[in-house]
Amino acid sequence: MLKYMEIAADIERSIVEEDLKQGTKLPKFDELIRKYGVSKSTIVKALNILEGRGAIYQIQGSGVFVRRRNRLGYINMIENQGFTTNLDHFDITAKVLSLEKVLPDLEVKENLNCQEGEEVYHVKRIRYINEQILCVEESFFKSDIVTYLNEEIVMGSIFTYLNEALKLNIGFSDKYLHMIKLNEDNSPLLDLKPGDPGLFIEELFYLSSGVPFDFSRTVYHYEHSQFFVQSSSLNH
Amino acid sequence: MLKYMEIAADIERSIVEEDLKQGTKLPKFDELIRKYGVSKSTIVKALNILEGRGAIYQIQGSGVFVRRRNRLGYINMIENQGFTTNLDHFDITAKVLSLEKVLPDLEVKENLNCQEGEEVYHVKRIRYINEQILCVEESFFKSDIVTYLNEEIVMGSIFTYLNEALKLNIGFSDKYLHMIKLNEDNSPLLDLKPGDPGLFIEELFYLSSGVPFDFSRTVYHYEHSQFFVQSSSLNH
Repeated sequence: MLKYMEIAADIERSIVEEDLKQGTKLPKFDELIRKYGVSKSTIVKALNILEGRGAIYQIQGSGVFVRRRNRLGYINMIENQGFTTNLDHFDITAKVLSLEKVLPDLEVKENLNCQEGEEVYHVKRIRYINEQILCVEESFFKSDIVTYLNEEIVMGSIFTYLNEALKLNIGFSDKYLHMIKLNEDNSPLLDLKPGDPGLFIEELFYLSSGVPFDFSRTVYHYEHSQFFVQSSSLNH
Repeated sequence: MLKYMEIAADIERSIVEEDLKQGTKLPKFDELIRKYGVSKSTIVKALNILEGRGAIYQIQGSGVFVRRRNRLGYINMIENQGFTTNLDHFDITAKVLSLEKVLPDLEVKENLNCQEGEEVYHVKRIRYINEQILCVEESFFKSDIVTYLNEEIVMGSIFTYLNEALKLNIGFSDKYLHMIKLNEDNSPLLDLKPGDPGLFIEELFYLSSGVPFDFSRTVYHYEHSQFFVQSSSLNH
């Protein structure tokens, strides 16, 4: 992990552990520079990470202040490392419905920039949050990047495996979402009825090099999923 | 507008106007410093803004690259300046159902840190996107900050008014969202039926000083609303 990311993680951990309130002023730049023994630019980067995550806000000429969420049990909509890494420590499990190599449909092919005839990993899972059905998820992985998957891996956090075993650096993602009425196909998988609400999310994940490697389509259970989004002044 | 925000806006405008493709490399730091006649730290700030907005990605030691969305017509879920400022230039209008000063309920009172007996502005509107019903929105504004509202103002973009007329600096926001089935009260306002899907979003907006000033509850029309979220490596 890069130094500024370590520092960001350390500051965030201390906010949570010391249970600092919204608006609490953090130590000045000089103190942070002394404490971590790094340059000013490293501290600036760490604080920008934290501002982007919604963990702090910065007021020019005034200082750096704590931001806290006032509700727990919501999934972070901006986090792009898969939700098993969330601070709330949800109990996330999965049942694998399908794991195979397939020729991608046109939408998957275009999103993943596949060559003609190039196969991709297709993973279909039901995911559970605290033992309730959270979503049904279909993911397509580019197989020249995600070179190996098996049933054991996809039962857990695929992103942790990509990161730790395949040493892939996950960079950023595009999410597109809208509501649907469930149909005859997806409602039984969520243990719901046709016509019930669902949140449909399509997501394209990129490596930090800018190469797309995972295209997913997910339908969330309307009673078991809730999300939060913290915008920062970086999002103006 | 601060210099680094101007530069960020200028770079983003040129990406859109020149229709640069995903992965296009932007000019090097030195060139940007020369072009805009500013310090390196100002360029770093401008690029961080753009990374936070999902307009670019940065690869350490390699450069700065363009990010483009491949779909239009989606509302930015992270943008916190009200969606009338979006680059897609949606045609957003509003019908005002109610504008009055009221004593807040407990949830509003706590979110806005109201004193005992302190009244807030209550605004209820139906908002339209390209002449279709987008959502029904109830907002509560702290009246010592938002000191004046009238029917003409709330028919347009309230945030533009707050920014330009009241000179308020909008800082950041917390959003909490989940799906609902519409009921007898809200379904007729959306021209839908009870039991149809809806996306319920509660949002708390803060000034850049960290003071909360607007708490809103919004229900989105499931057929007329779609959203995108672009995560950056700042969201790890």
